[in-house]
Amino acid sequence: MTIISDVNFTIIFDLLGTFAFAISGIKLASGKNIDWFGAYIIGLVTAIGGGTMRDLLLDVNPFWMHDAKYLITTGVALLAALLFKEKLFKWGNTLFLFDTIGLGLFTIVGISKSLDVGLPFWVCIIMGAITGSLGGVLRDVLINEVPLLFRKDIYALACIAGGIVYFVCYKFEILSPLSELIAALTVIFIRIVAVKFHLQLPILSTINDKHYKKQNDE
Amino acid sequence: MTIISDVNFTIIFDLLGTFAFAISGIKLASGKNIDWFGAYIIGLVTAIGGGTMRDLLLDVNPFWMHDAKYLITTGVALLAALLFKEKLFKWGNTLFLFDTIGLGLFTIVGISKSLDVGLPFWVCIIMGAITGSLGGVLRDVLINEVPLLFRKDIYALACIAGGIVYFVCYKFEILSPLSELIAALTVIFIRIVAVKFHLQLPILSTINDKHYKKQNDE
Amino acid sequence: MTIISDVNFTIIFDLLGTFAFAISGIKLASGKNIDWFGAYIIGLVTAIGGGTMRDLLLDVNPFWMHDAKYLITTGVALLAALLFKEKLFKWGNTLFLFDTIGLGLFTIVGISKSLDVGLPFWVCIIMGAITGSLGGVLRDVLINEVPLLFRKDIYALACIAGGIVYFVCYKFEILSPLSELIAALTVIFIRIVAVKFHLQLPILSTINDKHYKKQNDE
Repeated sequence: MTIISDVNFTIIFDLLGTFAFAISGIKLASGKNIDWFGAYIIGLVTAIGGGTMRDLLLDVNPFWMHDAKYLITTGVALLAALLFKEKLFKWGNTLFLFDTIGLGLFTIVGISKSLDVGLPFWVCIIMGAITGSLGGVLRDVLINEVPLLFRKDIYALACIAGGIVYFVCYKFEILSPLSELIAALTVIFIRIVAVKFHLQLPILSTINDKHYKKQNDE
Repeated sequence: MTIISDVNFTIIFDLLGTFAFAISGIKLASGKNIDWFGAYIIGLVTAIGGGTMRDLLLDVNPFWMHDAKYLITTGVALLAALLFKEKLFKWGNTLFLFDTIGLGLFTIVGISKSLDVGLPFWVCIIMGAITGSLGGVLRDVLINEVPLLFRKDIYALACIAGGIVYFVCYKFEILSPLSELIAALTVIFIRIVAVKFHLQLPILSTINDKHYKKQNDE
Repeated sequence: MTIISDVNFTIIFDLLGTFAFAISGIKLASGKNIDWFGAYIIGLVTAIGGGTMRDLLLDVNPFWMHDAKYLITTGVALLAALLFKEKLFKWGNTLFLFDTIGLGLFTIVGISKSLDVGLPFWVCIIMGAITGSLGGVLRDVLINEVPLLFRKDIYALACIAGGIVYFVCYKFEILSPLSELIAALTVIFIRIVAVKFHLQLPILSTINDKHYKKQNDE
């Protein structure tokens, strides 16, 4: 019952977001000695991993079981990566835009599904962030890297900011479809600004702990 | 109500498959500075990880909670690995056969459990592949390697082929026990042929993407 | 309806345990080029990961969705790590004590929740061990290390021993609150003794398997 699931152009953005997420998985898998099937799975996990974890936590059926379009879109992404390779990535800005729109959309879908289950707003915000960003974390675990999310850019924080904006709108009794649009645009705006101006959180420096070490690591 | 869960020899193959899966986990854990308990856990995750994820996705109780035999079989596998070491692996061909039979069996169990829940056939096929192959992926994540599944051999694809064969049989109204047998043999046959003739999917070569990089990684 | 959830001092130990678990995640994340947000997430996963997996397996709502105190405590842990750094870790012994009390408490919470769901005692013991120790495993996977749990000390085994003691008490019809106290103290005692005297399980040596290799890895 949300603009996100009703309007046709949302379906298009959903697929574009899925495509861009899958491509990011396939791209990071390349050069890791991974075969086509592995690349497909890593692309798929990137695209549907966040929503699947959300659905497991909400105790509802994983969304992709009801509709094969996510698996097919990932297949199209793999095909595109195989056929166009470097050419595909020359459209880096376009892909980044899809990825960012996907992030905004996935976040709102996550919030909206959690609201339907009747969760408190702070849990909904977390579910939005999990929907948007956990796929990338699983992708990095599978290709054996420390998740990019922990090291770079503003990503999950953009989801959280969008979630907060959503509930501010809610508080001011703004209609649900409009709230969703404003929240999604917030995610997209923050993400673009963060990448454009290289905004990053400070790195946590090494904690030197002779005492703790003595106790625990010997 | 399937041949897989009824017939006695299926129980034997189930345990032999579990044993072989556990041994593959314990073997890969060895030489990674892992202690006996760690080896047991990695063996266990290899053996029951796929079925556990399937049951989480299907929203049913994890299968191993109803029957201690999987935990006990893994314990026997650890004992065998400690006592017989190299000797055990001289029976490499036998272990490989158990592993492959296990793969076929686990795939069918996954499909059959998903059918019981009323899922569409393409989801059942995926559940069969998850049941058969996710344990090995979790094993590789735990020992900090890029999953073998993504890099080598035909493994999950054999599960998927078996699943497709199952539904072709179904379409032709072949009796369920017979369909299951044919599908399991398909998985086993493809896996053996793939290993015998070193069949592999092509590797995804590095995608060089100056544009994308410029946008995302700086 | 357990002493663990009723008595006030249990709530305090719950938060101290959460704090110590979060600190262990944040400490291991430091020096890995991880930013503040990443450190928060890794601390959070360390603190709530075990209980979340338990709740997924038990098919109940993840515990942290009902109470924001776990997320807030993790935030306090991050703040403490940023503000006090080395100073914080000079209290290594105190942190270790919190961590160990947390381990004992989390184990009993896991067992008690599983009993409420009506699981057999051996599954309850496993759920106790998962509650106490899986957070640390997920932490290590996220920072791209082979889990410490597999390599060092007696950790999950202390949880299992505590679980066995719990059911021995149960068998002798000792009152539930007293059983819980005895079981928690068992976990704490074994863990402290293991660290104090550097007790460790034997390491699984490399298994050299030319035959197996020939069959599977070429």
